[in-house]
Amino acid sequence: MAALEPMYRDLANGQTLLSPRVDNIAPTAHPGGYYGFKHMGGTWPARKIQALRINSDVVTHPLVAGKPRRVKQPLAPGRDGKGRWVGLVLLFSTETGALLAMFPDGVMQRLRVGSASGLALKHLAREDVSTLALIGTGWQAGAQLMAARAVRRFRKVRVFSPRAESRAAFAAQHENIELVDTLEACVEGADVILAATSSLVRVIEPQWLRPGMHIGCIKLQEIDGEVLGRCDRVLVHNRQQAKQISNVLAGTPNVRTESSEGWWKDPKHSYPDLGDLLAGKTPGRCEESEITCFANNVGTGLQFAAAGAAVLEKARRMKIGTELPDDWFSEDVHP
Amino acid sequence: MAALEPMYRDLANGQTLLSPRVDNIAPTAHPGGYYGFKHMGGTWPARKIQALRINSDVVTHPLVAGKPRRVKQPLAPGRDGKGRWVGLVLLFSTETGALLAMFPDGVMQRLRVGSASGLALKHLAREDVSTLALIGTGWQAGAQLMAARAVRRFRKVRVFSPRAESRAAFAAQHENIELVDTLEACVEGADVILAATSSLVRVIEPQWLRPGMHIGCIKLQEIDGEVLGRCDRVLVHNRQQAKQISNVLAGTPNVRTESSEGWWKDPKHSYPDLGDLLAGKTPGRCEESEITCFANNVGTGLQFAAAGAAVLEKARRMKIGTELPDDWFSEDVHP
Repeated sequence: MAALEPMYRDLANGQTLLSPRVDNIAPTAHPGGYYGFKHMGGTWPARKIQALRINSDVVTHPLVAGKPRRVKQPLAPGRDGKGRWVGLVLLFSTETGALLAMFPDGVMQRLRVGSASGLALKHLAREDVSTLALIGTGWQAGAQLMAARAVRRFRKVRVFSPRAESRAAFAAQHENIELVDTLEACVEGADVILAATSSLVRVIEPQWLRPGMHIGCIKLQEIDGEVLGRCDRVLVHNRQQAKQISNVLAGTPNVRTESSEGWWKDPKHSYPDLGDLLAGKTPGRCEESEITCFANNVGTGLQFAAAGAAVLEKARRMKIGTELPDDWFSEDVHP
Repeated sequence: MAALEPMYRDLANGQTLLSPRVDNIAPTAHPGGYYGFKHMGGTWPARKIQALRINSDVVTHPLVAGKPRRVKQPLAPGRDGKGRWVGLVLLFSTETGALLAMFPDGVMQRLRVGSASGLALKHLAREDVSTLALIGTGWQAGAQLMAARAVRRFRKVRVFSPRAESRAAFAAQHENIELVDTLEACVEGADVILAATSSLVRVIEPQWLRPGMHIGCIKLQEIDGEVLGRCDRVLVHNRQQAKQISNVLAGTPNVRTESSEGWWKDPKHSYPDLGDLLAGKTPGRCEESEITCFANNVGTGLQFAAAGAAVLEKARRMKIGTELPDDWFSEDVHP
């Protein structure tokens, strides 16, 4: 969060650049799957960093507990024949152009999503919140929990996901949480509800919302216009960044559910963003009784520039990583 | 050319995807320079290849022989303290997501520009052309010459650039060319005029055009509306792909000349493209007397997908390159 906060202020003050987030969706051989190539860039001159984050995935939409989910298949070759995912962060110097570092995006990916939600929660949730309801027990849910606990002292954390084995695995990684096996038990009496799922349909129900509550989501589909209509103050992660999905090819299944229809296409759901909040251009919570919402609507390459710059600095200090010859990633002809 | 031709046909038939070409322009410390981060992607399902080409440059606009040019400064560290440029091509598998290869873009960069111009020339120039006028003696000019000679038998090739030392260096690399020291001597009696410069102002003059001639350029600014107005048949490299230039930051010099104003913004200058031509959707030269023009207006990531797939196949066959562990470029967590 400390690494990201100054970047958001620069963003709100027009001192950064975003590249459009682009998703190319194409046919692939994997049954029921499609190939998704995504990239997002960010230029942060104050830190002299250009970042590009790249994902190259075979994506499927299986039904889990009766609901469709977005699941990336680990099909890239790895040691011992175990499949792996492909997500990379590249960092370049805006002073020399050089490629400074290249690393997998997975750990940073969830930390930057969690950090954004945590920074928003810090300014939007009541100071005296006591009970956190966390929906989801995957990779992202862990980061949401860590971030929420970093900015508020919760006396109780209730965690739900549809599968008992997923809940148990989550409990092995996080202390002082209560596992529950229904959504209703999870959200009962909660001050904060955080959805951290890969659901392609609504997860947070409008009737759960009570005065003074804060809710958050990490995927647009986890909430809808009805939920937003009950909130008094809504912020999104980034209001400039839109997803550009290119999918003109025949034979690509299932993609419409990911993108085209939803509250985010409706101009009435235009909200200030986290940059505005952290730069003091829009207020956080103003009243005890407000229902606040942070929709972590879309990621940006700038998150990877900010988190990446911090990681690179730390890796250099700790002498972690593999140094590769500069000449491999540069050339002696004017391109 | 053989590697690229089937890609252009798939492009024209809607069987490929392009990512938008994006240029992020930001301040940098180099005097009179700016930082430019450019990337362009392409998905070619028929070859199961996703390409991303990345350029990370410090750019300056010096005056050479009184005219402004776009010059990338080699500031990335290299062996023996010699500065280098940074341009990379990444190839991914659309079947597994895996990063297949990563290599510098420089040599491929000029070959794919030359190939596009050569493929166009093959269909647009008269069969019996005899004299080629080549304006420019840089990296790109060499590729234009090779491509033109691959598709037509020129009896005379005249080459001009403003500096005698550049001309001499070019002559050392290419056989059977005649160096001239004025533009007029270069284009006198030419059947084909190819501009291959980094000029930011017009290079081909409208009064040079004669019936039956073919002209080509590799940079939008080398021609203008007046030149195009004298042509009977014009093709561009790609009519979908536009440049998206992000430059909202203060302190960035000179960028307007690169992008915003010019014939390419005027809808009256809408032309079919190389894909249309190679897919048989638009004709090549129809009459001996036509003046034809190929404006190599913008590059695409698909060129790097097509050329990259061919290079990768050849490199594997010849066992060239450095194998790096797959695990370095993949991850064991769902990103």
